[in-house]
Amino acid sequence: MASVLLAVFVNGKICKNPNMVSANDFFFPGLNKPGNTSNALGSKVTLVNVNQFPGLNTLGISLVRIDYAPYGLNAPHSHPRASEFLFCVEGTLFVGFVTSNPEDPNVKNKLFTKTLYPGDVFVFPQGLIHFQYNVGKTNAFAFAGLSSQYPGVITIANAVFGSDPPINLDVLTKAFQVDANVIKYLQAQFK
Amino acid sequence: MASVLLAVFVNGKICKNPNMVSANDFFFPGLNKPGNTSNALGSKVTLVNVNQFPGLNTLGISLVRIDYAPYGLNAPHSHPRASEFLFCVEGTLFVGFVTSNPEDPNVKNKLFTKTLYPGDVFVFPQGLIHFQYNVGKTNAFAFAGLSSQYPGVITIANAVFGSDPPINLDVLTKAFQVDANVIKYLQAQFK
Amino acid sequence: MASVLLAVFVNGKICKNPNMVSANDFFFPGLNKPGNTSNALGSKVTLVNVNQFPGLNTLGISLVRIDYAPYGLNAPHSHPRASEFLFCVEGTLFVGFVTSNPEDPNVKNKLFTKTLYPGDVFVFPQGLIHFQYNVGKTNAFAFAGLSSQYPGVITIANAVFGSDPPINLDVLTKAFQVDANVIKYLQAQFK
Amino acid sequence: MASVLLAVFVNGKICKNPNMVSANDFFFPGLNKPGNTSNALGSKVTLVNVNQFPGLNTLGISLVRIDYAPYGLNAPHSHPRASEFLFCVEGTLFVGFVTSNPEDPNVKNKLFTKTLYPGDVFVFPQGLIHFQYNVGKTNAFAFAGLSSQYPGVITIANAVFGSDPPINLDVLTKAFQVDANVIKYLQAQFK
Amino acid sequence: MASVLLAVFVNGKICKNPNMVSANDFFFPGLNKPGNTSNALGSKVTLVNVNQFPGLNTLGISLVRIDYAPYGLNAPHSHPRASEFLFCVEGTLFVGFVTSNPEDPNVKNKLFTKTLYPGDVFVFPQGLIHFQYNVGKTNAFAFAGLSSQYPGVITIANAVFGSDPPINLDVLTKAFQVDANVIKYLQAQFK
Amino acid sequence: MASVLLAVFVNGKICKNPNMVSANDFFFPGLNKPGNTSNALGSKVTLVNVNQFPGLNTLGISLVRIDYAPYGLNAPHSHPRASEFLFCVEGTLFVGFVTSNPEDPNVKNKLFTKTLYPGDVFVFPQGLIHFQYNVGKTNAFAFAGLSSQYPGVITIANAVFGSDPPINLDVLTKAFQVDANVIKYLQAQFK
Repeated sequence: MASVLLAVFVNGKICKNPNMVSANDFFFPGLNKPGNTSNALGSKVTLVNVNQFPGLNTLGISLVRIDYAPYGLNAPHSHPRASEFLFCVEGTLFVGFVTSNPEDPNVKNKLFTKTLYPGDVFVFPQGLIHFQYNVGKTNAFAFAGLSSQYPGVITIANAVFGSDPPINLDVLTKAFQVDANVIKYLQAQFK
Repeated sequence: MASVLLAVFVNGKICKNPNMVSANDFFFPGLNKPGNTSNALGSKVTLVNVNQFPGLNTLGISLVRIDYAPYGLNAPHSHPRASEFLFCVEGTLFVGFVTSNPEDPNVKNKLFTKTLYPGDVFVFPQGLIHFQYNVGKTNAFAFAGLSSQYPGVITIANAVFGSDPPINLDVLTKAFQVDANVIKYLQAQFK
Repeated sequence: MASVLLAVFVNGKICKNPNMVSANDFFFPGLNKPGNTSNALGSKVTLVNVNQFPGLNTLGISLVRIDYAPYGLNAPHSHPRASEFLFCVEGTLFVGFVTSNPEDPNVKNKLFTKTLYPGDVFVFPQGLIHFQYNVGKTNAFAFAGLSSQYPGVITIANAVFGSDPPINLDVLTKAFQVDANVIKYLQAQFK
Repeated sequence: MASVLLAVFVNGKICKNPNMVSANDFFFPGLNKPGNTSNALGSKVTLVNVNQFPGLNTLGISLVRIDYAPYGLNAPHSHPRASEFLFCVEGTLFVGFVTSNPEDPNVKNKLFTKTLYPGDVFVFPQGLIHFQYNVGKTNAFAFAGLSSQYPGVITIANAVFGSDPPINLDVLTKAFQVDANVIKYLQAQFK
Repeated sequence: MASVLLAVFVNGKICKNPNMVSANDFFFPGLNKPGNTSNALGSKVTLVNVNQFPGLNTLGISLVRIDYAPYGLNAPHSHPRASEFLFCVEGTLFVGFVTSNPEDPNVKNKLFTKTLYPGDVFVFPQGLIHFQYNVGKTNAFAFAGLSSQYPGVITIANAVFGSDPPINLDVLTKAFQVDANVIKYLQAQFK
Repeated sequence: MASVLLAVFVNGKICKNPNMVSANDFFFPGLNKPGNTSNALGSKVTLVNVNQFPGLNTLGISLVRIDYAPYGLNAPHSHPRASEFLFCVEGTLFVGFVTSNPEDPNVKNKLFTKTLYPGDVFVFPQGLIHFQYNVGKTNAFAFAGLSSQYPGVITIANAVFGSDPPINLDVLTKAFQVDANVIKYLQAQFK
């Protein structure tokens, strides 16, 4: 908490103890270590936002490292408060996002996709649902920059089928236009 | 298009023909007419954003009218660029939203819900997934204000299972942790 | 106060006790009750901003309910920090706003007006003087959304002629280009 | 108009002809000349906003010079899009502003005033009604900075009693709680 | 500190003791007194930002008075968080700024300059390096408005050659493409 | 230019031809290729802002790749419109920034430095002067994210000593407190 205040001082806010600021307030080490992808999705997002790195406070930017096992997935999600660029460092990533609903009924939710190789960048506009999928046979990893020091993340499957408490069965049955058993089956995956 | 420019003038931007601005640029009629809810979800959102109402340009606000048949649903969705208040005018609405993923692994995606009666207001923070469900035996209707002149909307089920082209089957199978046939079944509902 | 902090958490700010957030932080009941219009103006504005509803904190939006007796008036006023849309629910409202002073001396302060019937919407750009007047023989009521969680309101007559302490008589006499007795008479109405 | 685009380039926006930018785009001469105060209010505001000075475009700041004859008044007004500091260069200025309506009914619209001598500064928060009055026996002049390149100005008396077309007599009679003849008299001053 | 909170109240934030706000919170006296220019540069900047004047808090604006002895210099500097207009009140000021590096290698860092006489205004876009130099034989003085309540200032020579601790000699030698002795000589001026 | 408009559409602005948007508008390839560091500084910044990558338009974020030969330097510079995080991918980088001038005369311009190894991140607040220096014996490279789609860059040495036309000799002599010959020597390096 002290660090948050100290960092703020350098960016122009008032802080009582400017002498307490040190270079470490602006430093975050260790992103060369791959995240542990031994999980159901085969991916791991390592967050570096204002919660982990107080020096980002008021600066309007943050980052993540994302690791992918072969066929690992950073599942469809959105950031309520940030746009994002993703830089593919290693591996082959199939990435995409879906536009917001067009108001013209003749135009559907558009999916834009691309296969990224090392050195390729893709950008996901604020609040839109996007994903990355490792379509190569080796590990992949990427870095992303986000336009907020606290962007938030909504993993769609977990928010919709794994919330606590669960969303009402009638709501989900109607939203997805399926039998209640399908919803129950989906919800069971996220318990 | 002319109207957009004219409206902008009044809010302080430069416009060559200020004399062309009229009161109609700031007027939008007809929201007393219920929307047609004869559809699968039993609901209808009537949009009043800068596309329909040029006078909203630069003003950072817009609105919608939402009609619900009995058991009608405004399915889980999010607005990438706006927070929203919803005012229940008639009927009984079960409403809720899910928080963004907490970073503490012991805390799950939280669902906050409330049953609204006429005169009740609920607020949905920017970018979070939310829904309204008519749990009464009569028609319901509500108004909502949004903190953007062009808030956008992402209907989760349609964006995830009904995009054009469809999201890759492997991606969805892994994200939802289910058999491919379940995903195919879900996708079939949105063709 | 606790509620303010808790609400902020959900919108992405740091809060020490996220477990204390509840659905009630995002809920405001009772706007179906008409406000009491038994006053000189025959109108009543029921405020729902961050002071009454802590869950609006950081969300950049708020609302009001406005009730009008027959010939009731929401007197000329401005909001220093918000644009506003007004939705007429019941009754017949004559509404208008005045533009800011055009710099071209040949163009005067323009008044834009419209008569609203149920279902009609009008928008008032930020900071401009506007009013609504019930020109029907029955009660009227409206809802408004505002592009700030704390928009403020400056009722022109009260701010100019009813401030505490009063504005200097010489200032008002000169500003309104009238005899001091006229100003004294106007000031007397707001004691 | 070309100058507006060119100025924008230097501040980081795209412009096709950066070589056309010159120092004159960032220069505005002649504010040492007193404005002509031979008018009913005995004051003159010389505007230097983006309309007069294209180089201010996108910079979020503008200025004015204000001249006051003895007992000259810059009448009560507000800026819909800017806060303002006023620096008294010469003379003795009685200045003040009125707060927005407190929601607590026991607290009235507060007037804050001060007499400024050369070298004194006062600040007027965004959107609040304020004025300056030369209470000395000599000419006075001041400079002001505003937090917008196009702040707008609403002169209260003129907007309320001198709009085109006039505000409905019933509206003003009720708002000011006076006889219609008083309103007619006031309106007659601004024809 | 109390004053900061109180000032905030008037601009629309929540404050527990609104009755404690007074006109003095919005008042800053004494800018008619010339600053003491008896120093190596022959100039003195008198700051009036939120640190000296709490009433500016949240208002997004501040000011400075700058005095110049004959041949006095306000050395090349930048403001990390504000654009600035400079108004020449007395004397003859040679002013200028350098654009940010053009991306086209054929276009160099452009210097825009102008000689200001009393009543002339010049504007310096946010973050760009600028200076003012008294090229007259008499004292000069100017006022400036800045688009932030806490704009910050980076005096280039001092930040580059006089930081604590000093910037690594190798870094500066390479950056300025000169012999290490030249850098040592430059650094010696700022000890 | 068309791409700029199309990209804007997806982020919520109006565009006449949404069907023209394609995935390539959000894609930027080739950042795996090292930049050519065969120059005086031994470094190369590869820019990926809205000029090179139209899909960033309105998204408030951009990036760069920076390559460093052994002892290569990204010379002291500032970004007028963005904060920056720098991620060290390969090599050993000595990095630092200088705070803005403290107003307390007892506190000097503080330099904060750190040596970064692969996986380390450092953050540079908006508008402050910063640098990176390859202190290893091998090539180094880093990625940086910036909180603006068009951040700008001011290379201090070039802007001060290499502008076109040059900054007046008297100005620089006084600012750096050195003999005119030293300034002439410095300016000669940037011709």
